[in-house]
Amino acid sequence: MRQAGRYLPEYRALRAGAGSFLELCYTPALAYEITLQPIRRFGMDAAILFSDILVVADALGCPVAFVEGSGPKLEPVRSAAAVARLRAGGVSAHLAPVYDAVARISQDLPAETALIGFAGAPWTVAAYMVEGEGAKEFYAARAFARQDSATFARLIELLTEATIEHLRGQIAAGADVLQLFDSWAGILPEREFVRWCQEPAARIVQALKAEYPSVPVIAFPRGAGLHYRSFVAAVPLDGLSLDTAVPVARARRDFPGLCLQGNLDPVALLTGGPGARREAEEIVRSLAAGPFIFNLGHGVLPDTDPEEVAALVAHVRSLPLPAAGDTGA
Amino acid sequence: MRQAGRYLPEYRALRAGAGSFLELCYTPALAYEITLQPIRRFGMDAAILFSDILVVADALGCPVAFVEGSGPKLEPVRSAAAVARLRAGGVSAHLAPVYDAVARISQDLPAETALIGFAGAPWTVAAYMVEGEGAKEFYAARAFARQDSATFARLIELLTEATIEHLRGQIAAGADVLQLFDSWAGILPEREFVRWCQEPAARIVQALKAEYPSVPVIAFPRGAGLHYRSFVAAVPLDGLSLDTAVPVARARRDFPGLCLQGNLDPVALLTGGPGARREAEEIVRSLAAGPFIFNLGHGVLPDTDPEEVAALVAHVRSLPLPAAGDTGA
Repeated sequence: MRQAGRYLPEYRALRAGAGSFLELCYTPALAYEITLQPIRRFGMDAAILFSDILVVADALGCPVAFVEGSGPKLEPVRSAAAVARLRAGGVSAHLAPVYDAVARISQDLPAETALIGFAGAPWTVAAYMVEGEGAKEFYAARAFARQDSATFARLIELLTEATIEHLRGQIAAGADVLQLFDSWAGILPEREFVRWCQEPAARIVQALKAEYPSVPVIAFPRGAGLHYRSFVAAVPLDGLSLDTAVPVARARRDFPGLCLQGNLDPVALLTGGPGARREAEEIVRSLAAGPFIFNLGHGVLPDTDPEEVAALVAHVRSLPLPAAGDTGA
Repeated sequence: MRQAGRYLPEYRALRAGAGSFLELCYTPALAYEITLQPIRRFGMDAAILFSDILVVADALGCPVAFVEGSGPKLEPVRSAAAVARLRAGGVSAHLAPVYDAVARISQDLPAETALIGFAGAPWTVAAYMVEGEGAKEFYAARAFARQDSATFARLIELLTEATIEHLRGQIAAGADVLQLFDSWAGILPEREFVRWCQEPAARIVQALKAEYPSVPVIAFPRGAGLHYRSFVAAVPLDGLSLDTAVPVARARRDFPGLCLQGNLDPVALLTGGPGARREAEEIVRSLAAGPFIFNLGHGVLPDTDPEEVAALVAHVRSLPLPAAGDTGA
């Protein structure tokens, strides 16, 4: 999860000479380079494409600016007219440089290293589009979704189609695995979670599975712990990514055969030392009774020491695992 | 929950002529007035004291300033020396004006209207003290709690004692019910939730119960849905307050005999109309199989129309309830 980023000096060096954040995403040679940086340094089992969940908003004609230190700014989409102005047709043309980056990375990655493509889930992308920026609770987006739910449903519909198109483009270009990030799934009451998160995720994964049955899809409905059972029952996912708040032993019991990904606290990696490695060990021990992917529960924090990441990777690799036959995997 | 606030014109009028936010909290006549405003207007079954969770930090010698539009600012407490400088002894003396307000309110409230006193839970207050301000994820506080957990434990210890003292002061002055707000309980991994939220809550409630067995205590570990069972098992609470994300029917099944409070989405009340009242009805229907308190899942939003609050109160009052004998309450 967010392997590339401000914690790596080689990323900061590259960033210093380059243009805006979105220009990095849209310049295949740079996206290639940034995607490979953590793989070269740490040799993880998988690389995650360097990109952003908001490229789909940008592709739909809702321009996104990343303001250093204060996050993304968008022209708020808060009317039927604003939704009608979005360009549903041109997503994959606009995002062609992303697929170009995927193709280059896929070609050069070691054969044993998987490439994870990704997209933001419709609710999370819509929340930014309506709010116009990041927020703690996204009240403006939640109010709009209630006040004009027909228009909001149309926006979610557009985003669902655009997300399918964007993920399809990444598979066609060579992505081995996909992840769907619903970073703000946890702030919704149950009914809205089902309508704005779960149902669109089900449609997206079904559409991809129909076309590419062998490409695994991991969903990350962050903060939605109480809704996991319903989500897993409704979405034909291959993997569930767990945030930091989820007790992994319990998730393992609830979903014995499902591939679970997670969930070391990024703060544990930031403070580092033997404490972080001990926690990682406990996570692996709990998850290893079934198929799993060791990961953080959220992105690497900017002040994280790369040496701590290296030590964590080495430690996790050193842990004994039950034989595949024992796990039922 | 947060019945008084910026959505009421009479509050804004009073506020315009008054001093800082903390001065309101520390001026008994004003805290009295603001506490009674929503009761006069809406006649709810209970009044909640007008105060703030950070008065305890202030009483410990960590001064708090409320900056209009950007929330509380505190001098960050991030060292053993800074924790040692806190004044553990003078909490109830510093907060005497709060108890004075409680006494005045208690005297004048209609006999059938309960007065709810409250405090912030140690983790949430400590998170603000270490971070120095509000935050989305409280990374600085979480990092400090890991880097120097002995010092952080000392801070939690001080806050636990101060919270008991502050709640005791409110009971002695006439509060009928207490609520413990752990607004940031949901961002912690399980082990830290147990250590920094659950164990201090258990100590606080045990101490109060030992002295005042008949005063009900409601806990609100916001966002901690996956940890509810463990929390309810460990803390001798009388009521559990549910945030907006918790499916109430499920909470009712999990805790059949416990008083549950919640959990209409404040955004539903903001957008208002029949939709909000329908949702309130569903919540009452689910919760009414046991003891419950109808409430929002978080505070009233500033742009909420007071007429919508009045309509909601009237609607909830009009709903048929099972006879007490049927609920097991």
